[in-house]
Amino acid sequence: MPKKSTPGPRDERGVLAARILAAAREEFAENGSAGTTIRAIARTADVDPALVYHYFGSKGVLLDAATAPPARWLENVAKTWTTPVDELGSALLRLMLDAWADEEIGPVLRSILLTAAHEQATREKLRKIVEGSLIGLAQLGVDEHDRLVRSGLISSQIMGLAMMRYVWKIEPVAAMSDDEIVAAVAPNLQHYVDGRIGQEG
Amino acid sequence: MPKKSTPGPRDERGVLAARILAAAREEFAENGSAGTTIRAIARTADVDPALVYHYFGSKGVLLDAATAPPARWLENVAKTWTTPVDELGSALLRLMLDAWADEEIGPVLRSILLTAAHEQATREKLRKIVEGSLIGLAQLGVDEHDRLVRSGLISSQIMGLAMMRYVWKIEPVAAMSDDEIVAAVAPNLQHYVDGRIGQEG
Repeated sequence: MPKKSTPGPRDERGVLAARILAAAREEFAENGSAGTTIRAIARTADVDPALVYHYFGSKGVLLDAATAPPARWLENVAKTWTTPVDELGSALLRLMLDAWADEEIGPVLRSILLTAAHEQATREKLRKIVEGSLIGLAQLGVDEHDRLVRSGLISSQIMGLAMMRYVWKIEPVAAMSDDEIVAAVAPNLQHYVDGRIGQEG
Repeated sequence: MPKKSTPGPRDERGVLAARILAAAREEFAENGSAGTTIRAIARTADVDPALVYHYFGSKGVLLDAATAPPARWLENVAKTWTTPVDELGSALLRLMLDAWADEEIGPVLRSILLTAAHEQATREKLRKIVEGSLIGLAQLGVDEHDRLVRSGLISSQIMGLAMMRYVWKIEPVAAMSDDEIVAAVAPNLQHYVDGRIGQEG
């Protein structure tokens, strides 16, 4: 897969690949994979369709690359695992708020959320994020099932908030400051982390 | 707008209109309005495109009809407003779980959530649901702004849960029983209803 590097004459390939990926994220998110053609992506990226094929080979490879969580984000996720358990609610929320505000990570997450409704492969990627983001948290849950339930509930709140705030942009949630969001929502995430959920917790 | 009625030879118009609406919901949700043609909807509904134009006039009218919340659901919402405030968390959650399980209401909500990312008009409809579903709750919030914040936060949790459970179908949240979901999530909704959210609550 082409890698993005510092722009410059020698990096034309990297710059063009990044432009194609950005266009692909937008097109897949807008129209799903079935409704998206290489031609449409090339038009949005303002490059020749042949170049898209040359760089990525097929629409499936391009979809996979466009919805791949950036390594930098995965590092941030892993860093969150060192948070003391009683601060995890706000730490996980800050992780999400920072990710969506990031101009590289935000569009990828948006693309994953919007494409997952239509694409089995992207839904699988989303499922791995839901399970994997919290897998390093040995302190979460009393057993594997309980951990997955808590992880799913945490994700349901974080992703619903992301849809409201960044995708649908519904007020006043979209305009609230990060600090206001954390004050309101972190206690609920903390409930999913170590609170009583149902009969077993 | 055509109305659905008891199927029978005299109701061919209603039956066909309902089939067109179901096809439209699917197509708009999959491909967005821009990626959807009357022709594609007609093909999915197995009718002639001329019939779609004859019944609905334009794609805009069809999009509006396909994403209109059923009157029956709005009645259920209004009924929820009579719930005592300290039981609202679970009542709002049951309202959502019942709606998504309903074979008429569920597909409309799904269509609204998936189309709102792309269509300004549908996003506006979603915004009205977020604000309007709780507008009858005089007991919610200390003032108009506080009520809208709480309404938005409640919606963020309910809609995120709906995406996880019914759209992305991510386990174990998708397979949990309604009672398990209520036991785990209702306390968090109740926190948004009457808990302390930030500095002002």
